[in-house]
Amino acid sequence: MRVLILGGDGYLGWPTAMTFSKKDHEVMVVDNYLRRDLARKHDVEPLWSVPNLLERVRTWHEITGHTIRARIGDCCEYSFLAPIFKEFQPEAVIHYAEQPSAPYSMLNHEAARITLNNNLQSTMNIAWAIHEHVPTCHIVKLGTMGVYGTPNIDIEEGWIDIEHKGRKDRFLFPRQASSFYHTTKIQDTDMLWFYVRTWGIRVTDLQQGPVYGIETDDTILDDRLKTIFSYDEIFGTVLNRFVVQAVSGYPLTVYGKGGQTRGYINIKDTIRCVELAMLNSPKAGRLNIFNQVTETFSVNELADKVARVGRDRGHHVEVKNIKNPRIEKEEHYYNPTYSGLKELGLEPHLLTDDVLNSMFEGVEKYKQNIQQHKIFRGVKW
Amino acid sequence: MRVLILGGDGYLGWPTAMTFSKKDHEVMVVDNYLRRDLARKHDVEPLWSVPNLLERVRTWHEITGHTIRARIGDCCEYSFLAPIFKEFQPEAVIHYAEQPSAPYSMLNHEAARITLNNNLQSTMNIAWAIHEHVPTCHIVKLGTMGVYGTPNIDIEEGWIDIEHKGRKDRFLFPRQASSFYHTTKIQDTDMLWFYVRTWGIRVTDLQQGPVYGIETDDTILDDRLKTIFSYDEIFGTVLNRFVVQAVSGYPLTVYGKGGQTRGYINIKDTIRCVELAMLNSPKAGRLNIFNQVTETFSVNELADKVARVGRDRGHHVEVKNIKNPRIEKEEHYYNPTYSGLKELGLEPHLLTDDVLNSMFEGVEKYKQNIQQHKIFRGVKW
Repeated sequence: MRVLILGGDGYLGWPTAMTFSKKDHEVMVVDNYLRRDLARKHDVEPLWSVPNLLERVRTWHEITGHTIRARIGDCCEYSFLAPIFKEFQPEAVIHYAEQPSAPYSMLNHEAARITLNNNLQSTMNIAWAIHEHVPTCHIVKLGTMGVYGTPNIDIEEGWIDIEHKGRKDRFLFPRQASSFYHTTKIQDTDMLWFYVRTWGIRVTDLQQGPVYGIETDDTILDDRLKTIFSYDEIFGTVLNRFVVQAVSGYPLTVYGKGGQTRGYINIKDTIRCVELAMLNSPKAGRLNIFNQVTETFSVNELADKVARVGRDRGHHVEVKNIKNPRIEKEEHYYNPTYSGLKELGLEPHLLTDDVLNSMFEGVEKYKQNIQQHKIFRGVKW
Repeated sequence: MRVLILGGDGYLGWPTAMTFSKKDHEVMVVDNYLRRDLARKHDVEPLWSVPNLLERVRTWHEITGHTIRARIGDCCEYSFLAPIFKEFQPEAVIHYAEQPSAPYSMLNHEAARITLNNNLQSTMNIAWAIHEHVPTCHIVKLGTMGVYGTPNIDIEEGWIDIEHKGRKDRFLFPRQASSFYHTTKIQDTDMLWFYVRTWGIRVTDLQQGPVYGIETDDTILDDRLKTIFSYDEIFGTVLNRFVVQAVSGYPLTVYGKGGQTRGYINIKDTIRCVELAMLNSPKAGRLNIFNQVTETFSVNELADKVARVGRDRGHHVEVKNIKNPRIEKEEHYYNPTYSGLKELGLEPHLLTDDVLNSMFEGVEKYKQNIQQHKIFRGVKW
């Protein structure tokens, strides 16, 4: 397939591009380096630096013989994005091109403005480019489990049948998120669902939980092919960050009571889920939604796992409950459904001790790069 | 009260400003003339021209002795908007400052971009300005009944209790709109609801139906105080447009079968509803939602009423069903609740023959201004 990967320079975008390229899809990546720029600006660069996207695709070609095309530019600029759709005629577009951090979106007005504009304008532009230039192209958009928040009812995969005063209808599952970033992901789903109904486009929305992991089958081929790995509170997801904290002797910081429960997923499974979604395009005028997680843990459970494996490896690991800097429930009901992607063929990589040990190994090699001041920046909401 | 009216130059904003000013509220209006600019650009100016906003407030002072302050600028520019909140310290802000037309939002990519950016950036900026400069200020935001679409269940006032697999929770009522404009109104509610929960701000969201009418108690004081009156398919609401079509001998164009049913409201009631909402601020951290309509009609019923009254006044009025240029249901269940504002004191002006006759009188005086080519511009979706 011809696959356009927007946000192809990111933590997930780059490994996705390599995997699809190796499977003989015709891949083009697009990125404007927003995430790199924001990380540098806020002094929270990843644990190791990676070459720029054009260098990465050259390295990929040198090592595997496969070609990934790359364009550097901003998906919020329709005059940049539309011609790419027109010329490349993608059969699928993987939309990772959003500002992905909840804490970043809560930093200040400017950060909120960038999040809102980036996440909604990029999504709108994709819908329009498809409508105008390649109407059968399938949008696979990365969403987040965070859109659902922590409702007191079971979380279904995107939809719910409501019976009310003796009548029935089917609706998007109710969503109320706990950060501005997550709210923009509610908004982009509403936008795509509107264009799906109105124009008959095809969309799959993947409501993903926090991703963890360092390596995929392709990132290990050469150090220059590694994906980024953030360990700060702004761009680092919780499990990745905990491993770095354990390795560097920084206490594992549990917010409040630590009963916050979420669904998690290994980076390898993310890429497989995106592939499965892409290969199973909905019909015209349909929006598929999958909950993209493989198991759920409370923050306390994650901290305990990391502490235990860390101590076994000789690290001195403390777990410390700190005052919660966020507005969120610390104890709540949480029962999400996540069977759709397994029905399509996903075989989950669960969070075993082996997986944790390999994450520790990956981080230990770069221990000298860890800068403890980057771990917490005091973002509050 | 100190009241800031954003979008104070508009069809509803200007009469609201006069009414509140006459009741001795301290009123400041803000507008960037976006609606005027768009109407001129698309050759769909209102039935009569009105003075600019600074002239209007001078006239208001000259005639009534009351003072309305005015600022010309863009609510999407935080560096313009925030200092206004900081200096004026409003107790309430009435947020009319959104691009208000569904057909405009469907015109082309640029119009969609303007709608998205204007409607969400202005709303985000208001929330931030309040958070940073006047945290107790009450936001009264104009929404639309269109956010609900035409669900197969009764429409409640903003909220619904859902029982699902033996557990219960309360959520925003499900929304799925039939234009991009209406979708941005779903998105702005989600955004405000997030900031309400997170920052403890106070918001009332008024889900309003299409407004009709020409005059309020203040617009009739002097021709220079009239509000605008649009009669084109982009900015003209259906009943206002039908009256103009009847006066000018242009058939009343019913889209498809004409069973599309909506809630409607007289402009006088809009202003009263906004006042009642403003005077009944929710507590910190609460979002009030009211459905701001007074009765429901199908398009066929509206056309029949206008045709009958028009013929009685000697106009030759035809009703013509045309191919529906929109994607919408032409026959559907529709049963919205709208009791909240009446409980606060609203005494509705219903759509009587007297009301229709006074609308005809208002339009007949300007019959020579009607340009039939402005009525339909062929916007389709």
